[in-house]
Parts: sequence; C-alpha cells; structure tokens
Amino acid sequence: MYAATRDSAHAAAAPSPDSGGGQGGPVGAPIAFRGAHQGGIVTPAQDRMHFVALDVVSESAEDLQAMLTAWTRAAERMTYGAEAAPGGAVGLGPYGVPTDTGEALDLPPANLTITIGYGPSLFERFGLDGRKPEALHDLPAFMGDDLDPATSGGDICIQACADDPQVAVHAVRNLIRLGFGVVAVRWSQLGFGRTSSTSVAQKTPRNLFGFKDGTNNVKAEDAEALAQHVWVAPEDVPGGAAWMAGGSYLVARRIRMHIEVWDRTNLQEQQDVFGRGKLEGEPLGAKKEFDAIDFSATRTDGLPAIPLTSHVRLAHADNLNGVRILRRGYNFTDGSDGQGHLNAGLFFVAFMRDAHTQFVPMQRALAAKDGLNEYIEHTGSALFACPPGLADGADWGTQLFG
Amino acid sequence: MYAATRDSAHAAAAPSPDSGGGQGGPVGAPIAFRGAHQGGIVTPAQDRMHFVALDVVSESAEDLQAMLTAWTRAAERMTYGAEAAPGGAVGLGPYGVPTDTGEALDLPPANLTITIGYGPSLFERFGLDGRKPEALHDLPAFMGDDLDPATSGGDICIQACADDPQVAVHAVRNLIRLGFGVVAVRWSQLGFGRTSSTSVAQKTPRNLFGFKDGTNNVKAEDAEALAQHVWVAPEDVPGGAAWMAGGSYLVARRIRMHIEVWDRTNLQEQQDVFGRGKLEGEPLGAKKEFDAIDFSATRTDGLPAIPLTSHVRLAHADNLNGVRILRRGYNFTDGSDGQGHLNAGLFFVAFMRDAHTQFVPMQRALAAKDGLNEYIEHTGSALFACPPGLADGADWGTQLFG
Repeated sequence: MYAATRDSAHAAAAPSPDSGGGQGGPVGAPIAFRGAHQGGIVTPAQDRMHFVALDVVSESAEDLQAMLTAWTRAAERMTYGAEAAPGGAVGLGPYGVPTDTGEALDLPPANLTITIGYGPSLFERFGLDGRKPEALHDLPAFMGDDLDPATSGGDICIQACADDPQVAVHAVRNLIRLGFGVVAVRWSQLGFGRTSSTSVAQKTPRNLFGFKDGTNNVKAEDAEALAQHVWVAPEDVPGGAAWMAGGSYLVARRIRMHIEVWDRTNLQEQQDVFGRGKLEGEPLGAKKEFDAIDFSATRTDGLPAIPLTSHVRLAHADNLNGVRILRRGYNFTDGSDGQGHLNAGLFFVAFMRDAHTQFVPMQRALAAKDGLNEYIEHTGSALFACPPGLADGADWGTQLFG
Repeated sequence: MYAATRDSAHAAAAPSPDSGGGQGGPVGAPIAFRGAHQGGIVTPAQDRMHFVALDVVSESAEDLQAMLTAWTRAAERMTYGAEAAPGGAVGLGPYGVPTDTGEALDLPPANLTITIGYGPSLFERFGLDGRKPEALHDLPAFMGDDLDPATSGGDICIQACADDPQVAVHAVRNLIRLGFGVVAVRWSQLGFGRTSSTSVAQKTPRNLFGFKDGTNNVKAEDAEALAQHVWVAPEDVPGGAAWMAGGSYLVARRIRMHIEVWDRTNLQEQQDVFGRGKLEGEPLGAKKEFDAIDFSATRTDGLPAIPLTSHVRLAHADNLNGVRILRRGYNFTDGSDGQGHLNAGLFFVAFMRDAHTQFVPMQRALAAKDGLNEYIEHTGSALFACPPGLADGADWGTQLFG
C-alpha cells in the first residue's frame, strides 16, 4: 500500500516517451534512461554533480554481474524520480529494510542522469580480459602531475548529474548501498557548479578563476563532431570489445586551483593565461565570445594577441591536428587544505572516442607550456570506458559480460 | 567604463527597500543586508551553504578592524548581487588586480545571506577582553565526542547561504581574499542540501537518514519564541558586551553519519530512533507531521509509542524545561572516508540566545541516551557569537571594537 502511495506520488515524473536530451528544468520531464547512448554525456550539463569511483571487493563475477543488473533497474527508476526499488523507503513494512534511503522522497527528478564507466583494472579480473577495449589502458604520466593514488583510478565509476545535488547524492548513495559486499568507495567528488555547456542552448558558465570555460566545447547539436570525437565507432572496438561501440571514454582529472595566488595577479596576466577576455570571454583581439579565433592576430607591439602559452591556443583543435573533446567538468570546494587556504578547484570530466589520441596529446601540450600551470596542480586522475546506452530490456550486467 | 557596465548589468538586483526575510527565489529581490538582526538566521533557509572558520593570523587590532570594515562593504554588495568592490572583475583595467574574482558575474543574488560570528578565542587578543560576552566560552565535552581539532573552533566564522552554491562559495572566497594576511582558513564546510525550515512557508526537508528534520524548529513567524530562544537580550550582555544585544550564538557540529549501517536497519528501528514516521514525519502514534506529540501514548504492547531513547523525545522542549533552538543545518558529502564509505553527514548549525543553557543541556540529554548515537559521530564543534544586524552606516569593525 505504501508502495502504491509512493508510486502514485511520482506519477508526475513517470517515464516519458520523449527521446531525452532536452532540459526541462527541475520540474520538467525526466531525461530518458535508455537509448543509443548513456545520459550524462551530451545531455545539457546539469548544474550539480556527484561522482564516485569504486573498487570491486568481491572476487565473484556472478556477484558483479548481478549487481550491475540490479543497478540498471535502480538507476532507471531513480532517473524517472522514483525510489530505487518498488516499496522503497517504507513499502516493505516495519520489519523490512527500506530499499530506498528516502532523502529524495519529496524531490523531482531534477534532470538526473546516471552514467556508468569501467576502469582498466576491472578487465584484469572476472574473466573479462577478452572484452577489454584496446584503448582502455592507463593514462601516461604528465609533466607536473602530483597525483594522489587515493583520488585516482578505480574499477567502476558512477557519474550522477542533476540540477538538485541532493538528487545526485541520493542516486550514488543508493547504488553503493545496492553494491554492498561487491564494491567499496575508493574516492568521491562533489561538484557544486558546472563549468561546461554541452548544448548551444546553454550559457557558458565560469570556473573558479572567474573565466568562461569550454566556449568551443563539442555540443550535443553537432552530430558530426560527436561521431568524430565522442562516440566510439564499431571499427574502434573489434572482437570481444564490440560491446563498447556507441560508448565513450571518460577522463577525470581533479585539478586543484591555487585561487589565492591567482587572485593576486592582474587582469592582463589572467587574460593572457587563458587567451580570452574575462568579462565577455572573447578570444583576445576579437569582440565576442563566439567570434572566430585568429591565432595570427598581433597586438600593437607586434606580439601575438593570443600568447603562445595561452590555454586557448594550446588546447585548440587547430593546434592539435584537429583533436577535440567534450568537456563536462564541475567546480569544487573540499574544505581547507590545512595550510590556511580553501581546497578548491576544477573536477575536469571529459568524454571522447579515444583518450590516448585525444586527451593525451592535448594534456601533453598543456603540461609542457600552459601558463595556467603556475596556478594549478593535477591531484587525481582516472580513465573509464562508458558503455553505450541500453536498449529496452537490456542491462549493464549482460552488456558487460555478454 | 567596465565598472559602469557591470553595475548596470546588476540593476535588476539592486538594493531593495524590502525589509527582507522573504524568499524571492533565485531571481527574486535580494535579502536585505541591514536591519535589527543579521541575515541567514531567520531568513527562510536557503538550499545551499558554504561555511568557513578562520584564524586571525595578524597581531594587529587595526588590521582586524579594517578588514571587518572592508568585509561589511563587500558583503553588502555581494548580498545585492554586485561584485565585491566597485570595478570588480575587470573595472580596474589590465594592470589592476581584480577586486572581484568573477565566478558569480552572471548569476543572480540567489537569496544570498552572509552571517558573521566571533569565537571565544578572538576575545583573548586585540584588547577585546572587556567586550567578551559571558556566555561566549567553549562548549564542554560531551559523551561520545570524537572531535577533530582541525575541523573545530576558530576565531571568526562566515556562513554564506544561497540557493545557488556558486554564489555562496564566491561570497566566502572573496571575503577570504580581502582578509589576506589577516585571516587564514582553519576549516570550511560545504552543505549541499538544507535540513531545516525556518519559516512556516517552507516544506520540511530530509536529512541523509531519509527523515524529515526540524519539524518543531523555531520559525521566523514566531516573534515570541525568537525573543525567548534566539535573540540575545540587552540584559544578557551588560557592560562591555552590550554590542551583542540582538545577536545570537551559533553552534556548529559536524556530525558524521554512518549511512551504511543505517541503511541495513529495518524501518521500525529507524522510526523508533527518531520517534517519527519516515514517510510523513508524524510523531509515532499520530497521523500527520505537525500533529501534537503525545509522549504518554502507548502501543498495543503497553510500551511508549515514542520510545524513551528516541531523538524527538530527548530533544523536545517538554523534556528540557522548555529549551528550544533555531536549527539551520545542511547535509554534506565530503568524498570518501578512506575505508570504502562515503564521508557523509549533517553539518548541524543552530542559533540560540545562550548555548550553555540551551544547546548544552539538549546535547547532554542526547549524548547520554539518544538511539541515534549508534549511527552518528560528532567530529567537529564550534561556538561563535554572531553580532546583531547593522544599522545604516554601521560596520562590523566599529561594532566589534566600539
């Protein structure tokens, strides 16, 4: 009876036949859970994020597969604003252990998406060697990296994005609960503000250096760019790795930003570091944010308008043999660093067709020359293979294990 | 010129003659900065919070006073949606260091309130001994406390609440920036979801145990209860401490919640621990959330409907000689605990007329008997004296130093 009550309370948030991808606002229709691709990649970037990396602590492939199947059911329900399982918070009666933790009971779906990914280490166990995509191997070390193993790597990741952080945290927490005995939390990151747009309909947000970020991001509306730069093509994953076609690789980098140092630099230094104006986000030498970037433009003193060490120049496709990625990062603030400063920064998340031919050359160029390096430090890193979306009736367990 | 551009862009968020306290939503009128009391106490609880505790690292009373005066100007501007200082992000030109960090440039005020408080330790220096309120001394140890000094105490606190977390973080960060050389961050806490209502117009939110929390909170509409339980009266602070009349004491407790253990208990245990129903939040034995609590009601087996060790019974005014407090806490999730779990919990914040006669007896009763203790742990603690609101022309520096 309780279950019926709860489910009818959620009627307004029932599964929609809509193809998803639209942003209906906190009380709009939920984002579709099933389709050719997972949600949370080209979905218009929601405002908040909870990301978790998990270690698989069970040795049993059956346990792992069963958990992934159970996760699929729960994730689909929660995406539509329902509890993690029928019955949920109270429906099993006084002697039942609730199958939903309840903190999102009164909240709308808030555009929740739940995106799953698998780390290289997962495929060394559970008889999965033959299904490992060739491109799924650890990122190389980059100049200046200061990675903490405790906030790097992981067998499985869950990215939950929503416009209400409590909805995102609830989703992650309930999947962890369902995985008790099979997975343990390795690291977890809350992002309070999006730093990327993934749709032309979204305004470009700002990072904690106060600059608009990701103006030239790959956008959901550009199907050709998505096919070329974001979605794994069947020819990329022959043989046992064919399950990954239509998926995407997720690179996560926890980037500590030394905001106190930055805040004492002048505007010109800041703009030269990014290669853009602070107020409008225009490429230096141009007028408006989306004006074409002219890397040959010079200032009156003859120097390049966009400095050779600027972030926008080094990260631009024109200077990277056409390489692009879909960025989907978030600002974070994790307490204090114990030395009198906020522990703040950017949780960089990006999706791409092959991290080793896209992120790696881009990050090598940035690590070598980016003026921003004076103000940032990469403290965490991970790579995950996010499988394609699920067709009706399919689930993550059978998708991974075949 | 830039400054003019920015200020006109903020015209829609200009200071309002409104007396404040209303919740206009993210694009509504800002909350009034000046008045009899500080904002952020009886203001309808905003959705998100950034809280910071600072140590004063300068030995100069003049530096401290000057910083507090500068903070007042910046806090008032930011509350109204403007940059921290005129000129702000770009107005001082290329060779100027921006006086606003810019990440909130495009955002509305989002009901931002900035609330300041002073810890007991502050009054041991700077010639402030004579101005220390008698009730401002450290909280005693409580049974079961597991406090980390690194997330406890502090000379000064800033509580920034807003419906957009980026607006709250921006406010805290810019005040820290203005205090460079005078204050250093001791600890900082982000709260992603409110757990209290402070107005009868607000729905009761849920904590991470999935329960409605703070149903019987002191509310903004109850002037008598505020006068009795929340605002410091002139007779409470004679002599040099008179500046504190109209202020309130803020108790902060970082409460780690062992959600994994909780999530494996049955519904009855959960409801018995709180003394309320999970779905509706009704007192056990009653029907609806705001029904009167009958502590003498019994179940069919003769036992009390509301167990003797339940949270609602122990914390209720009827069982504490009428003691009440105004709760204003937030849910948090701070990464992993390094042992396979989320580091999640409740950042308990409450305001009251005297922490030693209100919070202390309440917490003693809870620490001794509360069934919830099996699932929680207090890991941080602090007490701050929040001064009253500022009249026109007044500032925090002269208010504190006289």
